[in-house]
Amino acid sequence: MKVLVAASVLAFSFTAFADSHDDVRADPARMQSRIDTLGKFGFNPEGGVSRVAYSDADLAGREWLKREMEQLGLEVRTDTAGNIIGRRAGNDNSLPTILFGSHIDSVPGGGNYDGQVGVVAALEVIELMNEHGLSTRHPLEVVSFTDEEGGLTGSRAFIGKLTDSAMQTMSSSGYSIRDGIARVGGDPDRIGEAARDPDTLKAFLELHIEQGAFLHEGEVQIGVVEGIVGIRWWNITVFGVANHGGTTPMNRRTDALVTAAELALAVNLIASDMEGRQVATVGRIEAFPGAPNVIPGKVVMSLEIRDLDSAKMQKVLDAVQAAADALAREYGTTIEFVEIDTASPPAPTDEAIRDVIAATAEKLGYSYQRMPSGAGHDAQDLATITPTGMIFVPSVGGISHSPKEFTPPEDMARGASVLLHSILAVDRME
Amino acid sequence: MKVLVAASVLAFSFTAFADSHDDVRADPARMQSRIDTLGKFGFNPEGGVSRVAYSDADLAGREWLKREMEQLGLEVRTDTAGNIIGRRAGNDNSLPTILFGSHIDSVPGGGNYDGQVGVVAALEVIELMNEHGLSTRHPLEVVSFTDEEGGLTGSRAFIGKLTDSAMQTMSSSGYSIRDGIARVGGDPDRIGEAARDPDTLKAFLELHIEQGAFLHEGEVQIGVVEGIVGIRWWNITVFGVANHGGTTPMNRRTDALVTAAELALAVNLIASDMEGRQVATVGRIEAFPGAPNVIPGKVVMSLEIRDLDSAKMQKVLDAVQAAADALAREYGTTIEFVEIDTASPPAPTDEAIRDVIAATAEKLGYSYQRMPSGAGHDAQDLATITPTGMIFVPSVGGISHSPKEFTPPEDMARGASVLLHSILAVDRME
Repeated sequence: MKVLVAASVLAFSFTAFADSHDDVRADPARMQSRIDTLGKFGFNPEGGVSRVAYSDADLAGREWLKREMEQLGLEVRTDTAGNIIGRRAGNDNSLPTILFGSHIDSVPGGGNYDGQVGVVAALEVIELMNEHGLSTRHPLEVVSFTDEEGGLTGSRAFIGKLTDSAMQTMSSSGYSIRDGIARVGGDPDRIGEAARDPDTLKAFLELHIEQGAFLHEGEVQIGVVEGIVGIRWWNITVFGVANHGGTTPMNRRTDALVTAAELALAVNLIASDMEGRQVATVGRIEAFPGAPNVIPGKVVMSLEIRDLDSAKMQKVLDAVQAAADALAREYGTTIEFVEIDTASPPAPTDEAIRDVIAATAEKLGYSYQRMPSGAGHDAQDLATITPTGMIFVPSVGGISHSPKEFTPPEDMARGASVLLHSILAVDRME
Repeated sequence: MKVLVAASVLAFSFTAFADSHDDVRADPARMQSRIDTLGKFGFNPEGGVSRVAYSDADLAGREWLKREMEQLGLEVRTDTAGNIIGRRAGNDNSLPTILFGSHIDSVPGGGNYDGQVGVVAALEVIELMNEHGLSTRHPLEVVSFTDEEGGLTGSRAFIGKLTDSAMQTMSSSGYSIRDGIARVGGDPDRIGEAARDPDTLKAFLELHIEQGAFLHEGEVQIGVVEGIVGIRWWNITVFGVANHGGTTPMNRRTDALVTAAELALAVNLIASDMEGRQVATVGRIEAFPGAPNVIPGKVVMSLEIRDLDSAKMQKVLDAVQAAADALAREYGTTIEFVEIDTASPPAPTDEAIRDVIAATAEKLGYSYQRMPSGAGHDAQDLATITPTGMIFVPSVGGISHSPKEFTPPEDMARGASVLLHSILAVDRME
């Protein structure tokens, strides 16, 4: 599928653009080299990384990142949430900061690109500025947020919203988030100090791999992210009657798994048949007691719904619950929905920054497309306190959270070039 | 449902029946008292027992049983598989032994009746014989087999079929079966010595709760077991493509759980719609990687098929595999069946002993019904080396493997009375 690149109507003036270093471009080989080096920390046999936040591999990767920042002349600090922040002074340090970056932690069995491309691109931006003697009016800060994959932990603290109960959660590393934060050099007892005063921020920009196949299949080079979809999670429990698999005739069963299977199919059908870009997923299912010779008396399954529009998310849920009611009546089971307190509302990006990114891509001669982000990102937290923009680069085959995720060096570099020139453009905005 | 009690045609002569102690009946209160006492070992808060084989509770229960046997005058020994055997001499000890009993281990979170009623009934038989001065021509042995719930471990060793690899299996107690056998006083290095010479056995009789609702709902007092159904187990793995639940549109998914849900429904439908008493169960299901926000790339589920007829079991499997092939084609997934090496073929009981039990129930004035056993039992092992019979007593509501399993004292006593008089009848058989 070839996506037509829409003409962009700019909301701000580009007068100052042509006169500066608009021929500066990111170096694909240098970016790939940093990706490869970072990939050694938590290297997994499948070719990706298992660098879950707070693990030894994460600690090693963080140390590497701090050294890289220092070598680029950044003033590096770690806030009480463990976020690594490297500062480059502006010409007028009374102005608020332009913040950009992403994260370097991975899911268990993850790949080398999710989060990492955004941090490597941020380093590339600083290196390009150093090479070309570029200065900015605003101070710049490169950030790598703590534990993005475990619930946007670092950016949640950065906006002052990391709760005690979230910190008590066990992370994939085996440490609680609280202990993990201490382990990476943060201070969970002073987590409030990680909350950034919005007045000190001009904007936040995050470059990230798309994690979907939209750009790659459409042969589009840059995604201008319209916003991060809202996410809601439920635990659905189906209650039937556990019984002996050998002595209970087929017509005397109240098998919780039969109802659960019907419901999983209904979720898929509802999200597929409704018009729009909503998605709904049953990613986890477990039958209890869970023995091959026992009819399941209980099945617990997850439900996730995502969309850019809260009302649409509710509409999907309503349809799923109606289907559940009908199934429970049909099979004599009961079905319970418990919403998990991890909901994030849709987070639109800043319209002016969206326009900056689109205009920059166009200026640099890259094809681009406005699109939602189906995945959650630190940017959705930042969007609640400062004008925020997101740049997507293609994911080959749309593969993500897998050792097989891949973005070619040239695609990474195009993204970093758009990031650099967007930062310079934002720097010129009043 | 009221089940009509079929008239029974006897295959052997009952001439010697009336002249002996045919008014002797088991004592419901005494049996209940032993059930209650045994229930203290591994008592669980829900009112049942968690007395998994090799646990401390099992050890305590076994010690109690050995004392009970000794107090009844039995000569008690533990074989190298940990089977507890109590012998009562016959009038002619050159004759082979009539063996009877069951097991006292439970599933985790089990009840007070499964296995235990059979052992308590065996003690009651001995106590009745002592009280009424009854002797037998053949020596008698009461047996409590080791670890029935973990795979018929003790009876498997008793027939010389307990493999090294089975002994390496981890049991629910946290001990390997090998270590567990040593723990209960067996000797895994000399497991071969537990194999009983079939020539030393006249017959084996096991009384057990039905674990189904057939007798209770039909208001039938005694089940004459025609055989133990064959059991085959498979692990079914559905392979799809794991992907990000937020960035992968509904129409671009190859969700392994969608196929697996369809297949679970197909299993239920196939076993339900086919004529006969076959059952098929999906008791375990797990999606991988198993996160709410990841489309399952793999689902592993169990399949169990049971029937008294091997050909029928194969017919069910063939239909399930045909359904799987069609689903894999429809959804672009692949489905793999791996049979688990725990298959047990259908084990018919001995026809003559079936007739003895039926005639005995009729003589004692109890309603009875011939029926298969849907559950596996030690009797299925014993049936391969000696004429074997099984007596079922009703399970209230068919509940089993649960603290809620229950058989009223009067029902237990009717079973024990049938056991006693069946043993006496077998003793008179040439």
